[in-house]
Amino acid sequence: MHSLQFTAESSSNGVVERDFTVGEVPGVLWSPASGADRAPLVLMGHGGGTHKKWPAMTGRADRLVTGCGFHVAVIDAPGHGDRPRTAHDEQEIAALYRARAAGEPEGPVVVRYNTHLAERAVPEWQATLDALQELPGIGADGPVGYFGLNMGTAIGVPLTAVEPRITAAVFGLHWPDALAETAKQITIPIEFMLQWDDEHIPRESGLALFDAFASKEKTLHANAGLHKELPRFEADSAVRFFARHLGRA
Amino acid sequence: MHSLQFTAESSSNGVVERDFTVGEVPGVLWSPASGADRAPLVLMGHGGGTHKKWPAMTGRADRLVTGCGFHVAVIDAPGHGDRPRTAHDEQEIAALYRARAAGEPEGPVVVRYNTHLAERAVPEWQATLDALQELPGIGADGPVGYFGLNMGTAIGVPLTAVEPRITAAVFGLHWPDALAETAKQITIPIEFMLQWDDEHIPRESGLALFDAFASKEKTLHANAGLHKELPRFEADSAVRFFARHLGRA
Repeated sequence: MHSLQFTAESSSNGVVERDFTVGEVPGVLWSPASGADRAPLVLMGHGGGTHKKWPAMTGRADRLVTGCGFHVAVIDAPGHGDRPRTAHDEQEIAALYRARAAGEPEGPVVVRYNTHLAERAVPEWQATLDALQELPGIGADGPVGYFGLNMGTAIGVPLTAVEPRITAAVFGLHWPDALAETAKQITIPIEFMLQWDDEHIPRESGLALFDAFASKEKTLHANAGLHKELPRFEADSAVRFFARHLGRA
Repeated sequence: MHSLQFTAESSSNGVVERDFTVGEVPGVLWSPASGADRAPLVLMGHGGGTHKKWPAMTGRADRLVTGCGFHVAVIDAPGHGDRPRTAHDEQEIAALYRARAAGEPEGPVVVRYNTHLAERAVPEWQATLDALQELPGIGADGPVGYFGLNMGTAIGVPLTAVEPRITAAVFGLHWPDALAETAKQITIPIEFMLQWDDEHIPRESGLALFDAFASKEKTLHANAGLHKELPRFEADSAVRFFARHLGRA
């Protein structure tokens, strides 16, 4: 087991940002500047082609840390951010660009590549969670949530299915193909986001993935608009969801 | 034009409750006890078989008045609450009970009866809104929202389609049959609630009504559960929706 090594620290507006590594995997942990008490932890998965400090990540983290007093951790997915790409990564990225340039659907490439990335990322997330729970401000028995859309859902669904420490999750914006069977094993409360006019993910496909979760408590938020037009107020909604389920307001 | 007559007034926990009539139609207006300034107005339509002071109405009104400083008005629908039933009302209610007792779908009766009630209720709501806007705390140019589920949607959709004063609305829990064509004329921001396992309204029917709205800004909230299991946090979500669109936080 790798322990967590902090590599940088800064602080601003009530939020402490600490870069870390767990083995080869770089991550970032945002925490309330004020807090010494234990607080819930939200793991966030970034989208394809971005990284752990992408604006969507820092924006959501800020809301969760300052609004709820939670810790938030993001790690770079394999081949993303500060991590090297394998030859396989390069091939799949080239295939995606070719599909886009040809005006072909990108779904088949994205689904295939994300499935591969999830196989690499799930054990990394589990090792990261082990290491984070060694920190005194987090601890081994505190509530843990997961929040990831797009590729963050492709990784988060199989992670949540095998990881009983995660007790509430926000997913969305993904095809069901490689995920629906796994989603049927998930029973924790879920909030799921879908774009009603998504130009990449057919409406029926998004609805099918939401439908697959076995959770008794699950909520679909479908908004008019294209794939990248998820309204900003959905980030606030996700924060309220975690506040309800992880136990702080 | 009938003016508004107040018939009773009480006050509790920062909320002033005033019963009123506009012509033959009885209603209730809830307002912030503190406010002399003009504030936005939310019209709320109650569900079938209930009335203007049903707990769902008083609960939502309390959130809107104390949380946002809004006025909230509800009127008894035709044949409901303090209003007499016509012979036609009695026939339709008997038909509904017969369908339920026989284990037949209640949709056809509810859709037919609600369509009839909406024809009677829309002009009553317009006269009520005229009269409410004469009050100095509301005024003729302030923002107006509409919030109604079930029968409140059956009445609210045709009302909103003909009433340009309504600029944001929350609907849901209804069949599309008599409403989808009218919904296509509506372009204001909409939040729409649907129960994913509704035993009366088929999932596809609920989704079809949401789809019909021409609004560029529309959000579907679909929750796991039966028709009457709409989670209580959706009332808070509706309040935030109105706070965003009617202009106060």
